[in-house]
Amino acid sequence: MNKPVILTGDRTTGPLHIGHYAGSLQNRLRCQDDHDQFLLLADTQALTDNAHDPAKVRRSVLEVALDYLAVGIDPARTTICLQSHLPALAELSMLYLNFVTVSRLERNPTIKDEIRARGFGRDIPAGFLCYPAAQAADITAFKATVVPVGEDQAPLIEQTNEIVRRINATAGVDILPEARAVIPKSGRLPGVDGKAKMSKSGGNAIALSASSDAIRAAVRAMFTDPKHLRVQDPGQVEGNVVFTYLDAFDPDEAGLAELKAQYQRGGVGDGQIKARLEEILQGLIAPIRARRAALSKDPAYIVDVIRNGTEIARARTESTKREVVEALGLFRL
Amino acid sequence: MNKPVILTGDRTTGPLHIGHYAGSLQNRLRCQDDHDQFLLLADTQALTDNAHDPAKVRRSVLEVALDYLAVGIDPARTTICLQSHLPALAELSMLYLNFVTVSRLERNPTIKDEIRARGFGRDIPAGFLCYPAAQAADITAFKATVVPVGEDQAPLIEQTNEIVRRINATAGVDILPEARAVIPKSGRLPGVDGKAKMSKSGGNAIALSASSDAIRAAVRAMFTDPKHLRVQDPGQVEGNVVFTYLDAFDPDEAGLAELKAQYQRGGVGDGQIKARLEEILQGLIAPIRARRAALSKDPAYIVDVIRNGTEIARARTESTKREVVEALGLFRL
Repeated sequence: MNKPVILTGDRTTGPLHIGHYAGSLQNRLRCQDDHDQFLLLADTQALTDNAHDPAKVRRSVLEVALDYLAVGIDPARTTICLQSHLPALAELSMLYLNFVTVSRLERNPTIKDEIRARGFGRDIPAGFLCYPAAQAADITAFKATVVPVGEDQAPLIEQTNEIVRRINATAGVDILPEARAVIPKSGRLPGVDGKAKMSKSGGNAIALSASSDAIRAAVRAMFTDPKHLRVQDPGQVEGNVVFTYLDAFDPDEAGLAELKAQYQRGGVGDGQIKARLEEILQGLIAPIRARRAALSKDPAYIVDVIRNGTEIARARTESTKREVVEALGLFRL
Repeated sequence: MNKPVILTGDRTTGPLHIGHYAGSLQNRLRCQDDHDQFLLLADTQALTDNAHDPAKVRRSVLEVALDYLAVGIDPARTTICLQSHLPALAELSMLYLNFVTVSRLERNPTIKDEIRARGFGRDIPAGFLCYPAAQAADITAFKATVVPVGEDQAPLIEQTNEIVRRINATAGVDILPEARAVIPKSGRLPGVDGKAKMSKSGGNAIALSASSDAIRAAVRAMFTDPKHLRVQDPGQVEGNVVFTYLDAFDPDEAGLAELKAQYQRGGVGDGQIKARLEEILQGLIAPIRARRAALSKDPAYIVDVIRNGTEIARARTESTKREVVEALGLFRL
C-alpha cells in the first residue's frame, strides 16, 4: 500500500457526460493500477446548493455510479464510496470549521466565482460557504496526496493545505499530509453550443448514455466558425467546438494536425470535420452505452459496489478521524 | 416515554460554579423525574472558540461530568452524553448548514453579541458562526421540545425552529418538532466582584468544588453597596451582590425580605449579610464538595456514566438522523 492516494469524485447532481470523460474519467482509468484511488459520490456536497431538490441528489447517486462502471472503473482497483455514509467526513468538517475563519472562506477565489455563477448574492447557504472545509475533510480523511481538480479549483487545495498545517501545528505532529492539486492538461470541455461550461441543465452536453441519434444530432448542431460559410473559405480552429472536441478525443494527432491546417487554408467543409468527430464519439460512447444498459438491469449490483466501497472507505476515514482526535488530545471514550 | 424531552448541557471549558447551580443545575435536578432529560457535554461546541487549546476542552469533560454527579444528577434518570461521540450531530449539522444562509447566521443577535464579546472581528472561526446550525442539530437530534436557555440565547432557539420548518417543508412532513426556549426566572448570577458575568477565567466565580476557606474569602471580598460605609447608614439592595446571591440561594424568603428592609433603613452591617450568605453557601457546597471528592477517586466510574449515556444518546440521535434522511428522500445504503 505504498501507492500514492488519490481522492476524486463527482457531485451527484445528474448523469455524467463526455466533458467528464475528457476531464477526469479518462485519467481515473489510467490511475487504477499505480494509485490507491478513491472515487467519492459526493451527495453531501451536492446538497450545498441543491437542498431544495434532495430527490435529484438521491437519483444521481446510482446514475453516477453506473457511469463509473460503464466507462471501465473497476471496483476491485478503485474504491467507489458514498460521502453521506462516511460520518467521519462530517465530524472532521465540523472540526476543521474551527480552524478557518469566515473571512478566509469568503476570500476563496473558487467560492467567490461560484457564488457569482449561482447568483447567490448575500443569501449563500452556509453549507456552500463552508464546503472548502468539507472538501479538506474529504481529502485528509483519505490522507490523499494527489487531488485532480479543474484549474479553477486549485485554490481549494491551497485551502485544504492551510487547514492541514493548522491542525498539524496545533497537534504538534504532522498527522495529516499536504495534498497536491493535479490539473489536467486538457482543460474543461465547452458545451456543444460553444458556451464555456458543458452541463446537462444547460442542454449543451452529450451524456455518456447518449443514443446514436442524440450523438449525431449534437454533433450536427455543434458550434464551429460562424464566418466559415463556404467549403473553400478559410476556417477558424480556435473557439471551433468541433476541433476542441477532436483535440480531446481524436487519437490520431498527426491526422488531426493536417486536418486543422487544411481547414485553416480553406477547402474543408464543416460536414467533413463533423463526420470525423461523430465517428470518434460514436465509437467512444457505443461500448459505454452498452455496458451502462446492461449494468442498469442490475441495480442491486451497483448498490453492492457502493456498499462495499463505502465500507472500505469507512474504515479508512474512521481511522484518520481517530488519529486526528488523538493527536489533538481531545477526549476519547 | 411520553415525558417532554429536555436537551441542555454545558460547553466543556472548565469546572462549573455556583452561577451554573443557580442558573441551570438546580432546575435540572427538578426535571429529573417528569422529563426525559439529556445533558450534553458539549466538547465539540467548546472547540468553536477553543480550537487552540484542545487540552482544556478534553480535561473539562470529566470535570463537568463530576460536577453533574456531585450536585445530584442521577444517571439513572438523566442521560449524560458526550457531543463529540455522537456522529449524527455532526452529520445533521452539515445538512442543516444548507438550510440557513450566511447572512441569517450573521444577523443572529446572540452570535453578534458573542462575536463582539470575544473580540473576533472579521476573524471569526467559521465553526463559531455556524454553531447555531450545530445547536439546531443537537436539539432536533434528541427531538427536544424544551430547551432551557439564558435570556440572551433565546434567538438561537428561534434559529433552530426556522431550520425545523425548512426541513419539514422540504420533506413535506413534520418530521421534527419545534422547540420551546425556557428562560429561568432567576437570571444570570453576577460575579462576586459585581461584574455581569461570573466565570472561572474572570477570577470572580465560586466553584462547586470551592474549599470552605475559598467560599469565606469570596464572600468577604464580595461587592456590596460602596456607599454603605457605616452600619447605621441606609444601604442599597439593588446591585448589591450579596443580596443578589441571597435571592438565588436563601430558602427563607420572608426572613430575606425582612433583612432587605432593615438594610435599606440602616442598622444592618455588611458583615451580617455576608455571614448569612456564607452560611448558606457553605451549607450548599459542603455536600457537593464531599461527593465530588469521593467521586473523583473513581474516574473509571465517571467514564462509565458518560459511556452509557452516550450509547443511549447515540441510538436516539442515529434514529432521528435516519428519519430525516428518509423524509428528505436522500440515498440510503
